[in-house]
Amino acid sequence: MRLIHLLAATALVSAPLAAQTTPPPAPEFARIVDEGTNRSQVMVLAQQMTDVLGPRLTNSPAMRKAEDWAVAEFKRMGLTNVRKDGFDFGRGWSIERSSVRMMTPRAVQLTAIPIAWTPPVSATAPIVVAPMTKKEHFAAWRGKLAGKIVLVSAPGKVDDATEAPFKRLSGEDIAKLDTFKEPTWDPAKNARNMARMTFEEDLDAFLKAEGAVALARISYRDDKLLHGEGYQHRTGAQTPGVEIAAEDYRRLTRLAAMGQAPTLEIVSDVKFDDSDRQAYNILADIPGTDKSGSYVMAGAHFDSWVAGDGATDNAAGSAMVMEAARIIRASGIRTKRTIRFALWTGEEQSLYGSISYIEKYLARRPAPATPQNSDQNYYGQTQRFPVTPLPGYRDLAAYFNIDNGSGKLRGIYAENNAAAVPILREWLSPFGPMGADSVVFGRTGGTDHQFMAAVGLPAFQFIQDPLDYESVTHHSGADTFDHLKATDMRQGAMVLAWMLVKAANADAPLPRNPIPQAPLPTDPFQTPDPNAE
Amino acid sequence: MRLIHLLAATALVSAPLAAQTTPPPAPEFARIVDEGTNRSQVMVLAQQMTDVLGPRLTNSPAMRKAEDWAVAEFKRMGLTNVRKDGFDFGRGWSIERSSVRMMTPRAVQLTAIPIAWTPPVSATAPIVVAPMTKKEHFAAWRGKLAGKIVLVSAPGKVDDATEAPFKRLSGEDIAKLDTFKEPTWDPAKNARNMARMTFEEDLDAFLKAEGAVALARISYRDDKLLHGEGYQHRTGAQTPGVEIAAEDYRRLTRLAAMGQAPTLEIVSDVKFDDSDRQAYNILADIPGTDKSGSYVMAGAHFDSWVAGDGATDNAAGSAMVMEAARIIRASGIRTKRTIRFALWTGEEQSLYGSISYIEKYLARRPAPATPQNSDQNYYGQTQRFPVTPLPGYRDLAAYFNIDNGSGKLRGIYAENNAAAVPILREWLSPFGPMGADSVVFGRTGGTDHQFMAAVGLPAFQFIQDPLDYESVTHHSGADTFDHLKATDMRQGAMVLAWMLVKAANADAPLPRNPIPQAPLPTDPFQTPDPNAE
Repeated sequence: MRLIHLLAATALVSAPLAAQTTPPPAPEFARIVDEGTNRSQVMVLAQQMTDVLGPRLTNSPAMRKAEDWAVAEFKRMGLTNVRKDGFDFGRGWSIERSSVRMMTPRAVQLTAIPIAWTPPVSATAPIVVAPMTKKEHFAAWRGKLAGKIVLVSAPGKVDDATEAPFKRLSGEDIAKLDTFKEPTWDPAKNARNMARMTFEEDLDAFLKAEGAVALARISYRDDKLLHGEGYQHRTGAQTPGVEIAAEDYRRLTRLAAMGQAPTLEIVSDVKFDDSDRQAYNILADIPGTDKSGSYVMAGAHFDSWVAGDGATDNAAGSAMVMEAARIIRASGIRTKRTIRFALWTGEEQSLYGSISYIEKYLARRPAPATPQNSDQNYYGQTQRFPVTPLPGYRDLAAYFNIDNGSGKLRGIYAENNAAAVPILREWLSPFGPMGADSVVFGRTGGTDHQFMAAVGLPAFQFIQDPLDYESVTHHSGADTFDHLKATDMRQGAMVLAWMLVKAANADAPLPRNPIPQAPLPTDPFQTPDPNAE
Repeated sequence: MRLIHLLAATALVSAPLAAQTTPPPAPEFARIVDEGTNRSQVMVLAQQMTDVLGPRLTNSPAMRKAEDWAVAEFKRMGLTNVRKDGFDFGRGWSIERSSVRMMTPRAVQLTAIPIAWTPPVSATAPIVVAPMTKKEHFAAWRGKLAGKIVLVSAPGKVDDATEAPFKRLSGEDIAKLDTFKEPTWDPAKNARNMARMTFEEDLDAFLKAEGAVALARISYRDDKLLHGEGYQHRTGAQTPGVEIAAEDYRRLTRLAAMGQAPTLEIVSDVKFDDSDRQAYNILADIPGTDKSGSYVMAGAHFDSWVAGDGATDNAAGSAMVMEAARIIRASGIRTKRTIRFALWTGEEQSLYGSISYIEKYLARRPAPATPQNSDQNYYGQTQRFPVTPLPGYRDLAAYFNIDNGSGKLRGIYAENNAAAVPILREWLSPFGPMGADSVVFGRTGGTDHQFMAAVGLPAFQFIQDPLDYESVTHHSGADTFDHLKATDMRQGAMVLAWMLVKAANADAPLPRNPIPQAPLPTDPFQTPDPNAE
């Protein structure tokens, strides 16, 4: 590990020299940079996805329009085999209008948003502050919630923002990522995550049974940001729900604690759409010259939550994927292997789109033991064995994912794939002067390459400058086009196009890790986390 | 200057020792700290002002309730001569309900707030993006705005937040304040500020004459924060107006630039209240034993804007002032001089409350040359001569102001009053261990001590840790009780109580600077600021 660590540090420091010491880049490199710099369409594509199409909640009417738009765009670019690849997902949902007002003890227009997949409501009712995080908490509130708007979160405290919200990675930051990360399995943590999902459904049912008017939860960010992430996309929730800005929510709880429990007026004019329960990945190809079936792929999830326009999460990645396709086509570059482009859907609900692709074309795992609703397919995914490769398993020679905002690409996570490191490093080396040539050994998760890597496929996610992604835009109302960085997005599309071309023309597909054969071991000596809920 | 600078730095570094090397604090010190620490009411007072009373726009119905509450509280604490001291101000105004929605090309509930003192509206109309910053811009839009919602701001760009929003001052930060700041007079800058005020009124009248439905401006902070500061409190504005969150505003302008100018639905259910045009400072005394008429005073402005609850601006200062009064009364401390407590009003519109107090009781300046509307009394105030002291001029022995959020007091600005520096330093020295013993030579402005200091009175503002005041809470919707820091507020009230007691018992009143005799000179060689608008 030490050696790899040093290599990474060296690559980082001597990045501008790397281009001089490695062979001169292929002519394709110059063509990609020319097309991606001088005739870039990446911001035009991103603006269509955000300003024009708006947030793209999976199966929502806006997502349907976005799917049609993406298919048309890929066709316009001259891609082939452009298709919607469907799987059972659940209901569409959208917001028409919403308003939450405090009516007593004084009038305040609150900052709030409906929670996705909750039913509509228009009502005025008193609040009750009833924080509940597990089923055991229900007993204390039974019989006390009828006719009430139930504030289900603890109010918490303002988080003092002592770090800069907008960041770029230093060489030191990147070097820290360059460590072997042992795949771990923490059954207690998984159980807690599962319980949290199940709890949302239990709470929804409990509140419905109790005759609550609606539930309100607190935003998890301060300073009036909202998110509105929802649950139960398969059935829709039963209890209307809103997320209230932290400052407004805490005021409600304080007034209640003073014996002046406010009355709220909630208007949540939202609509379900059951015209089609299938969600659709969008797939499109640039065919290779070799007919072996071997292909490389780039992907980004196209779906978003609804508070903003899903700009950094993940119109940014989607636009870079589409722009990479356009660049390759427009440059007239032909490759040996086919290059496939994927815009995933259902990612925000738990990587449903990429899981569907894996299950259809790459490898199967046994079904989860528990009935599948909400996000239960996600948790425990890596523990279900055996992994059975499908005929398409060998065909996928490389997969590159983008899903960390609009920040400049700084390199790539090698996902503990030691044999791939020097190859990825060589491929990225011409991007040293553009800051993108770091290959780190470690793994990253939470997006669509994850379960491909988990079945042994050479699937990778790029490292990106975080900008204000974690601090501000991720899932929030501020996730809009103006938070995207054009220079960074152009660079990302060029890097992606280049990596696809290199992978598609490589003599051999990227080396793979072995197909995992058994569940990850749990550490018998593991000390329980004292901070766990 | 160098000497003073060094002294300040030394005081800072050796703060914990200062208490040992200065004479032991008077018994009053221990009584103040005991009362202010162990039986503090400062957060109870602040919560009443924010959660319960809410935002306190000058002359609004909420402010009337707040005035009554403050009078009752001061009386309950046993203060005497508790009174409302009125002056002509203008109209009351409040928000009942508001909503701004984009209706086409797609439905989005926007984040927006009515602008204070604009009239109500309920309408649906298309937007036109017509940025105007001076009267010369009107010609281009004449005849094009009827029936439109006019977006009057340029959209600008997201400001990358590369500094931490939440800050405390380091010793180095404080040392930087310890410099002589020559009072300056920049007639060009003053003219620009005046023109900006006048322009708001001109724009309002222009849009009314053109038949615009409403105006919309952009929030000056990103990440969905809103403010809603208004204008024309004397007459009320003629054109309905809303401030739209930066992200939402920019989306509108981009869609318009793409030829898809959105239609908005605006509901601004706001009310004027003309039951009383007088605004009222709240004054209350703790009488001294000496009947000479000499008194010391603490003040904070009690009024606020309306997006939040006016917590850090300035329930914090108001609560510290009231708590200082309570501490002194509850400690049974008697002083030679009377101690007066002032809760100013109309500060946000331009220090109207403190200007009124000065003009009634302390010193007169000639009336402004231009007719007084909006904030024109503020600009040019320091240039109007002669200053004519009133009989009360000599009586005010010291004035202490608090108005920079809820952050811990770190010391005090000596307002270029060299003779006062060692005295203030001695008085503050017992607060070294609590971090409040820095005396800096420099000046600060923008709040209610400013025009007292400008007529030569010993009037001072404290230095405070900024916390998230400048970055987040100042005038914004996030200016709520949960952004106040209890430990800091308790410290502030104790420091203030102590300084009042010391000033009220001092053998001699604080030294004063001479009464200014003539306008400040302008620099004939001054280079015009190339960045000026």
